[in-house]
Amino acid sequence: MSADANKRRLRAGIIGGGAGAFIGAVHRIACELDGQALVVAGAMSSDPKRAKESADAWFLERSYDSYQEMALAEAKHPEGIDFAIIATPNNLHFPVAKAFLEAGIHVVCDKPMTFDMVEAEELVRIVEKSKLIFALTHPYLGYPAVQQARAMVAKGELGTIRKVQVEYNQDWLLEPVAATSHKQAEWRTDPARAGVSCCVGDIGTHGENLLEHITGLKIESLCADLTSFAPGRKLDDDASMLLRLEKGAKGYLTCSQIACGEENNLNIRVYGTKAAIEWHQEHPNHLTVKYKGKPWETLARGGAYMDDAAKSITRTPHGHPEGYLEAFATLYKIIMADVRRAKSGQPLLGGYPTADDGLRGMKFVIKAVESSEKGAVWVKVMA
Amino acid sequence: MSADANKRRLRAGIIGGGAGAFIGAVHRIACELDGQALVVAGAMSSDPKRAKESADAWFLERSYDSYQEMALAEAKHPEGIDFAIIATPNNLHFPVAKAFLEAGIHVVCDKPMTFDMVEAEELVRIVEKSKLIFALTHPYLGYPAVQQARAMVAKGELGTIRKVQVEYNQDWLLEPVAATSHKQAEWRTDPARAGVSCCVGDIGTHGENLLEHITGLKIESLCADLTSFAPGRKLDDDASMLLRLEKGAKGYLTCSQIACGEENNLNIRVYGTKAAIEWHQEHPNHLTVKYKGKPWETLARGGAYMDDAAKSITRTPHGHPEGYLEAFATLYKIIMADVRRAKSGQPLLGGYPTADDGLRGMKFVIKAVESSEKGAVWVKVMA
Amino acid sequence: MSADANKRRLRAGIIGGGAGAFIGAVHRIACELDGQALVVAGAMSSDPKRAKESADAWFLERSYDSYQEMALAEAKHPEGIDFAIIATPNNLHFPVAKAFLEAGIHVVCDKPMTFDMVEAEELVRIVEKSKLIFALTHPYLGYPAVQQARAMVAKGELGTIRKVQVEYNQDWLLEPVAATSHKQAEWRTDPARAGVSCCVGDIGTHGENLLEHITGLKIESLCADLTSFAPGRKLDDDASMLLRLEKGAKGYLTCSQIACGEENNLNIRVYGTKAAIEWHQEHPNHLTVKYKGKPWETLARGGAYMDDAAKSITRTPHGHPEGYLEAFATLYKIIMADVRRAKSGQPLLGGYPTADDGLRGMKFVIKAVESSEKGAVWVKVMA
Amino acid sequence: MSADANKRRLRAGIIGGGAGAFIGAVHRIACELDGQALVVAGAMSSDPKRAKESADAWFLERSYDSYQEMALAEAKHPEGIDFAIIATPNNLHFPVAKAFLEAGIHVVCDKPMTFDMVEAEELVRIVEKSKLIFALTHPYLGYPAVQQARAMVAKGELGTIRKVQVEYNQDWLLEPVAATSHKQAEWRTDPARAGVSCCVGDIGTHGENLLEHITGLKIESLCADLTSFAPGRKLDDDASMLLRLEKGAKGYLTCSQIACGEENNLNIRVYGTKAAIEWHQEHPNHLTVKYKGKPWETLARGGAYMDDAAKSITRTPHGHPEGYLEAFATLYKIIMADVRRAKSGQPLLGGYPTADDGLRGMKFVIKAVESSEKGAVWVKVMA
Repeated sequence: MSADANKRRLRAGIIGGGAGAFIGAVHRIACELDGQALVVAGAMSSDPKRAKESADAWFLERSYDSYQEMALAEAKHPEGIDFAIIATPNNLHFPVAKAFLEAGIHVVCDKPMTFDMVEAEELVRIVEKSKLIFALTHPYLGYPAVQQARAMVAKGELGTIRKVQVEYNQDWLLEPVAATSHKQAEWRTDPARAGVSCCVGDIGTHGENLLEHITGLKIESLCADLTSFAPGRKLDDDASMLLRLEKGAKGYLTCSQIACGEENNLNIRVYGTKAAIEWHQEHPNHLTVKYKGKPWETLARGGAYMDDAAKSITRTPHGHPEGYLEAFATLYKIIMADVRRAKSGQPLLGGYPTADDGLRGMKFVIKAVESSEKGAVWVKVMA
Repeated sequence: MSADANKRRLRAGIIGGGAGAFIGAVHRIACELDGQALVVAGAMSSDPKRAKESADAWFLERSYDSYQEMALAEAKHPEGIDFAIIATPNNLHFPVAKAFLEAGIHVVCDKPMTFDMVEAEELVRIVEKSKLIFALTHPYLGYPAVQQARAMVAKGELGTIRKVQVEYNQDWLLEPVAATSHKQAEWRTDPARAGVSCCVGDIGTHGENLLEHITGLKIESLCADLTSFAPGRKLDDDASMLLRLEKGAKGYLTCSQIACGEENNLNIRVYGTKAAIEWHQEHPNHLTVKYKGKPWETLARGGAYMDDAAKSITRTPHGHPEGYLEAFATLYKIIMADVRRAKSGQPLLGGYPTADDGLRGMKFVIKAVESSEKGAVWVKVMA
Repeated sequence: MSADANKRRLRAGIIGGGAGAFIGAVHRIACELDGQALVVAGAMSSDPKRAKESADAWFLERSYDSYQEMALAEAKHPEGIDFAIIATPNNLHFPVAKAFLEAGIHVVCDKPMTFDMVEAEELVRIVEKSKLIFALTHPYLGYPAVQQARAMVAKGELGTIRKVQVEYNQDWLLEPVAATSHKQAEWRTDPARAGVSCCVGDIGTHGENLLEHITGLKIESLCADLTSFAPGRKLDDDASMLLRLEKGAKGYLTCSQIACGEENNLNIRVYGTKAAIEWHQEHPNHLTVKYKGKPWETLARGGAYMDDAAKSITRTPHGHPEGYLEAFATLYKIIMADVRRAKSGQPLLGGYPTADDGLRGMKFVIKAVESSEKGAVWVKVMA
Repeated sequence: MSADANKRRLRAGIIGGGAGAFIGAVHRIACELDGQALVVAGAMSSDPKRAKESADAWFLERSYDSYQEMALAEAKHPEGIDFAIIATPNNLHFPVAKAFLEAGIHVVCDKPMTFDMVEAEELVRIVEKSKLIFALTHPYLGYPAVQQARAMVAKGELGTIRKVQVEYNQDWLLEPVAATSHKQAEWRTDPARAGVSCCVGDIGTHGENLLEHITGLKIESLCADLTSFAPGRKLDDDASMLLRLEKGAKGYLTCSQIACGEENNLNIRVYGTKAAIEWHQEHPNHLTVKYKGKPWETLARGGAYMDDAAKSITRTPHGHPEGYLEAFATLYKIIMADVRRAKSGQPLLGGYPTADDGLRGMKFVIKAVESSEKGAVWVKVMA
């Protein structure tokens, strides 16, 4: 099997993501976009009828009623899937990942990694034991401008990092859930399915991951003030936190899902002793670089001057904007290159978030909640 | 065959677009992005070795040495392609389209439609006779903001259109071709392969198409000043033209491929008696609407207030930017919906550029060249 | 008098600009802003009551019922004005300028210079004979970013200029005048007071002046299409024109006063063989420089890297935005430095539009109207 | 004197602001811009030679060697100043203000109000006793967009305020002072002249003032992390703080003077239950309003739809940008209107920061420093 896997598109299977779920279609498009894989099987809903209809709409070859059944069947199938995609609510991440890993199938999983820390730590052990790939989808890392920023920091072009500012503003939880029939809003704000946090768990983690990915600095401690602004909401819909990072850098991270009028406004600014960078997810094709005493520079995706790390993940010429789906596809591209390597016995190269990063993200969420519950005091994130 | 075509992905074949060509991969991604089709066959280069390697890189099931062979073979194949994609230089558009149409296969063709007017008029007749779909890829029509603008004009929200401003600035032909080894630059500036115009034919036509698509107004006459700025260049690399449209509207269109530092800067502004719209292709997720005496409004792709014409072609929630590939994919989505209708005997719905639009685009190019050659005088575009 | 003029603020007198006129207050603020002059006298309206009230509101020392009386009286007054400011409708520019120049008083005059070419040519002769300063207020030249652009072109940083794009969009004449009681709208659209053109005369001339000032290239010929879109309007409210400049450069200029939703949207882009510049009057503190194959640069007013031509006319540190009044004040600053030089017998340095520039601007307007009346054909602007 | 004060420009005197100081010229321009006052006297430097030269450069009628002398002399002068402008380093604010208030002269003073809390509380008492006007120059309140934002909040157009984000980034203290010969940098970072804080005192206070002015909500408590990043610096050059405001609103404020490449980047976002506003000081003519489920609106200074609070302080038509000097002049305009009222015995109207606001600003600075010194813990700001 290892030999011919490089002569064909990889085969993927999806769990969750049935009709009505935004993120399911995103995973399918992202995974197939570069012509390296096809989604051929799925257990797309716990409701068998909806599972079947969803699979038919996608022309899947095989549809299952449960992920357990799917894991077993695909492991035995002569043209079984090469990897599984987990696009369910948070509380199912762990059992589904466990099932596929134990069936010998690589896993790509939505974030946050698990429901709680116990599961997170257990999953790290399962992945380790499995020798399989477990990748977490923080898609914003797939933007060329983000890789450009990371490369510039790594090369010392910003000098020593002093200050970091991360903002992630949305408004889709502005109203109490009861006021809407928004499928995702319902489970995101339900402690039984989302875990201890809504806003920090859903989008704060993206900010944390982006910050650490670009700067290469870990958050050492934080002081977080979480709020449930919408009446009756049980989990946080807004948070602001002060951060202290390795090597003396400082900063803050704010995230909100009640920031009226905001769509998916994730921004980051990193200030060093020699230069600063600023990036806006809603205008992802450009990266602003700010020098002391020099004109600001606007780097464009596709520019000849971009770092190889950015160039190598660019599909269209500059001026032909790429977006969220391309970033997501880039993450899949890097993950699937490792799936191919695994299948042909080559050493893995990584470059995508792993179970260790997922554990770290979970710890960030748990510590932010802990800080806030104690009155917004400083807590250590690193052991 | 008609029945089961709706139970599977459509099968596409590509002519041209081999390794090194930017537009080939764009067609493949766009055609496959929504999970409605797969590219399974190709005659990707006139060089057989390169054709084979390109096909292998895409995991194609069938690779051909020539488009003639491909047309004949696919027509007979039990799982033959449902439509052909033409991604060759301009001078091959006509013979390739003719070959596939005469083999009974639908065609999706890059623009401009043909090498010259004689071919354009002949192709219109061939398409008519074939009863098949012939679609031209002006991908900018696939942006939701463009459809929003068109819908607003159609509903009278701008009032009577008075003035239109279209700009399309690039710089990739800034230097003489001899100075580069840019494959596309070579044929675009070669009269034997590109036809009578480089810049107006390549990008001016996109501007013309966009303008007429949004406003619903045809260009009646124009006064064009074309220039070859780069030393030794045989075709235009820059043009500015005054326009007079139907119903008394006026405007201008400028296009340039020597506009230093510009990437793919296509912009349009349409001024009516009640409101104006402004759209920038490099920031395609937003549409600015300008009212007299009211705040400017920024409409965002994915907004609940958008017209159904825009909503129906939106894949990701607002704030998760879509780009050029998604616009291109939307054009394919609309075309392929008609391919499915054709296969199941349903009436076609259209909504994409046809051979008639292609003929009109060709006339626009020819008339712009004619105007300029006569000293930049007014010439009629409409018969 | 020459000696002590440098130990005090200069004294200015204003003609026109009475209560209700926007431009009168602008002249007063601009002329006084740097603490180099005070407006002390005026003939602010042809209506004596309004003239008196306007003068009182400004705490003027001397108010006159007519400009003729004012010119004679100020010439004899021991503390008479050092220069006169003409802020009347176009048809009075000539007689007022003539009166003050013949009374031996320097003149600062609003644009366009005169009502028609006959007056313009006569005024050039009068100025020449007078040996006095005659300065025309094209305030956009006073923006540091404009001087930066001019300096960069002059130093060859853009290489050879190939293409120029000038846009000036407003909407304050969107409706027929009858529909409003807008004082300025009334005379601007009245051939008896505004001359042969409304839009080209009022704002097209600013565009022409800006273009020639930045590029150092004169417009050799033009092909202009002028329109009166508003029902019943006698003069143009919109124009687009193709331009051919010296040294083979080309371009276009569009201006409109019926561009719905536009405020004072004057933009210029200049493309050379090595770099391009782009500037927007509504965001005047920044200048974008576009290089081939390099990141775009955003130059900020006040930056240490700016040319001395820009630095020397900057008042506040970068990040503390300057605006229209500061630009206007800079023009006055340069003019008044020459008034001081004239008073102390030093050679003049210039740097502001003179009667020759005014004549050239008039010719531009007349030629644009001539081109359009002949059917939008090419006409020579230079003799 | 009261009667004729309304028939002439007011007379101002300035303390500090001699040649080389940026803020001196700003005060002069701002105070004179609307033609309502002239600076006629000054004690512009503690160095008599520099004082005299500075006064001569401004054509002042009277120059003094010390502020003490000036206060006494002007109080007796038949054409003495109507108000004094204090533009000295922080440590002189108190004694100078005291001298003029005790001489019966109104005072306009730069911020922060005093060197420490003791002085601040004492000054409040002196002002109260004097029955004179004491105004503090937070010029950002003078921007029409800021008044528009405040008016919208006051009218309930944003609903209940939930979250506030204030950022103020500069880079002029990026390097240690020893590395430069920047006059202002020297005293701003010297505890003996600047007080307990550099960055929070200098610009954090502007942010705090802006936030409270727009929202009408006071900061109840804060948790601040101040840092001296530049080696050897004795005071903070960077701060981030979490905020809890009245009525349950939350937010954060960050300020930095080592944010590489930033000029004077003050931004504010206020999120309510019905709408949000966003304003950027470096692009001050526009205010973005964000609604849930509606297009974003860009309100432009000068728009017909603006609130009277914004319209009444607008000088130029929309599209003719105003800037920092106009905002500063607006603050003076409002203050000087009260000076005229005071002189003619009318009741004062206020609308500008007073000694009470100054005291509050001082408390904000002191509490931020206290919080940080205790390890970035929560401290109450309100008594």
